[in-house]
Amino acid sequence: MATEPPRRIRFGILGCANIARKVSRAILLSPNSTIVAIGSRSLDKAIAFAKENDYPASAKAYGSYDAVLDDPNVDAVYIPLPTSLHLQWAVLAARKKKHVLLEKPVALNVGELDKIVEACESSGVQYMDATMWMHHPRTAEMKEFLSDSLRFGQLKAVHSIFSYNSGTDFLTNDIRVKPDLDALGALGDTGWYCIRAILWASDYQLPKTVTAFSNVEYNESGVILSCGASLQFRDNKLATFYCSFLSNLTMEISVLGSNGFLRVHDFVIPFQENVGPFNVNANTKFAELSIGIEPAPTEYSIETDLPQEALMVKEFASLVGEIKENGSQTEKKWGEISRKTQLVVDAVKASIEKGFEPIEVIV
Amino acid sequence: MATEPPRRIRFGILGCANIARKVSRAILLSPNSTIVAIGSRSLDKAIAFAKENDYPASAKAYGSYDAVLDDPNVDAVYIPLPTSLHLQWAVLAARKKKHVLLEKPVALNVGELDKIVEACESSGVQYMDATMWMHHPRTAEMKEFLSDSLRFGQLKAVHSIFSYNSGTDFLTNDIRVKPDLDALGALGDTGWYCIRAILWASDYQLPKTVTAFSNVEYNESGVILSCGASLQFRDNKLATFYCSFLSNLTMEISVLGSNGFLRVHDFVIPFQENVGPFNVNANTKFAELSIGIEPAPTEYSIETDLPQEALMVKEFASLVGEIKENGSQTEKKWGEISRKTQLVVDAVKASIEKGFEPIEVIV
Repeated sequence: MATEPPRRIRFGILGCANIARKVSRAILLSPNSTIVAIGSRSLDKAIAFAKENDYPASAKAYGSYDAVLDDPNVDAVYIPLPTSLHLQWAVLAARKKKHVLLEKPVALNVGELDKIVEACESSGVQYMDATMWMHHPRTAEMKEFLSDSLRFGQLKAVHSIFSYNSGTDFLTNDIRVKPDLDALGALGDTGWYCIRAILWASDYQLPKTVTAFSNVEYNESGVILSCGASLQFRDNKLATFYCSFLSNLTMEISVLGSNGFLRVHDFVIPFQENVGPFNVNANTKFAELSIGIEPAPTEYSIETDLPQEALMVKEFASLVGEIKENGSQTEKKWGEISRKTQLVVDAVKASIEKGFEPIEVIV
Repeated sequence: MATEPPRRIRFGILGCANIARKVSRAILLSPNSTIVAIGSRSLDKAIAFAKENDYPASAKAYGSYDAVLDDPNVDAVYIPLPTSLHLQWAVLAARKKKHVLLEKPVALNVGELDKIVEACESSGVQYMDATMWMHHPRTAEMKEFLSDSLRFGQLKAVHSIFSYNSGTDFLTNDIRVKPDLDALGALGDTGWYCIRAILWASDYQLPKTVTAFSNVEYNESGVILSCGASLQFRDNKLATFYCSFLSNLTMEISVLGSNGFLRVHDFVIPFQENVGPFNVNANTKFAELSIGIEPAPTEYSIETDLPQEALMVKEFASLVGEIKENGSQTEKKWGEISRKTQLVVDAVKASIEKGFEPIEVIV
């Protein structure tokens, strides 16, 4: 007996942020989702945004976020608002039974995030943060290598960098350098990815303590423009990261194990949309006379039909579909991973505020 | 008027260390050097070593190091002895007017190194440490990129790893894990290179303080098997490194600038002997919609006719030749670079011993 194809999950978009252009395209690319509404504080802006981003003709444009949440045709919302507005709008969305795809950084602190995730849970709606690289097929392939006891072995050290040279206009005007909008600055925007990468590499084991490096750079409002930290685990692993708005665009993870090494140079956004490369060394030895090594490194290229952000939307919409169509439970892991990431973000911030003292990560 | 080709600098080798095989080959490959003597505590070992390593038939084998230093045909010595013996033999070599190519780590601490360099200076003999990668033509090419204000800009962060998975036999028997022979363990053997890389990238500016990471691993004799540290500079630069005998063979430098990024994956020993690759990104921006980047990274491949260790010998022998033939002054920079490297090694060790406190680097 033929089954009907599942209905597309219908998204509403809260706000016309720049990143919403990329995610709108992703929602339209994903086979199980579509856009039915966009809200902005300015109706004209919403109308223009829908047009510029090739929204379906039937998509509604609204002059408020509330109107999107009140639209009964909206199944799920994507929230790319400034971080300081996440608590209010994500909780309200959940109460109105809209599933929540939330841009990162997800909250100003873990207390806020807990309220958001609790609201989603008590309404039975799916929560997911919009960390796109988690959904690239490369990520699963890299994890397979890291899980290989013969080729990678025991995790010993992780280092991650995410920086971009944001330029004068950004440093003057962007929400990400405004203390009342995105108070976490570069730590929330780029450090979020580094911290997620470290947690991902360590199977989401939380560090015992976090110690920020003392070379923090701030703007005149006290927003972090660059920082880094070391993470101390209960075993002898070491993790370090560096995040910045003031350095060249760089997106590195290097993961060192007892038997292997993995590196990826475009983990946040692949240099090319349809392929994700990464490079491994396994059981590497010096050649005779310590001239060269053997075996040579191996380069992998993981192709993908859909860009990683469309795969993210597809995964989210699939979970929403299961809940809607089959009454499934929400998938809790996305809230848990968000929470661990936020806990470490909070600890780095606390370490900076306390003069670079080690801060215990308390679950 | 035709000039005579300069005579080859005549090396004596102190001891039959494994690394002396590679450097012996390098001395024989370099066009301005040769080997005239080898000394070991065992004459049989010296004879066998000379034969196995294709020494010229005229090369003398001696049953002591003293005999090498007393041989009037020896211009210069290469000293690959355990670090704890460097002070004694390097100073004696200098007093006997032999130029000194000294294996790293050069000394157990900067006090010892100062005595070695002073002895060389007062005898007018050349000092150089045997840090081979400094002499690969790639190193100068990479430095050119780092000096480019438009393509690289201001130095913001350096990270370096040198590790190898040394195995049970090494961890039981090698001099590098014996407190009476190479008390600096992995810090002296592999950390030396990371620290040199950081100093190289920062134009030999010393950090203000050094803070070791708390995840140190030791053997039962208290010798360091893995460690790392962050280096704090007077400006906002960050440098971190990780060195180990317990992780897969990995030789990374990544250098982040305001406008560019450089990475090299085989900085200590190139994966292939005749070519040194490195990779740069410069003025990298996200492409439209933050899908991909532009411009793409650039891969460089710097070819070399001679392996880097032969280029090191050639440079050293050239300095010795200038002194011998033309009465030139010794080149002081090699002693100065050694000293800065040793100062940071000492500071990391002190930080570990003082419970991972920041240690001021005092010149």
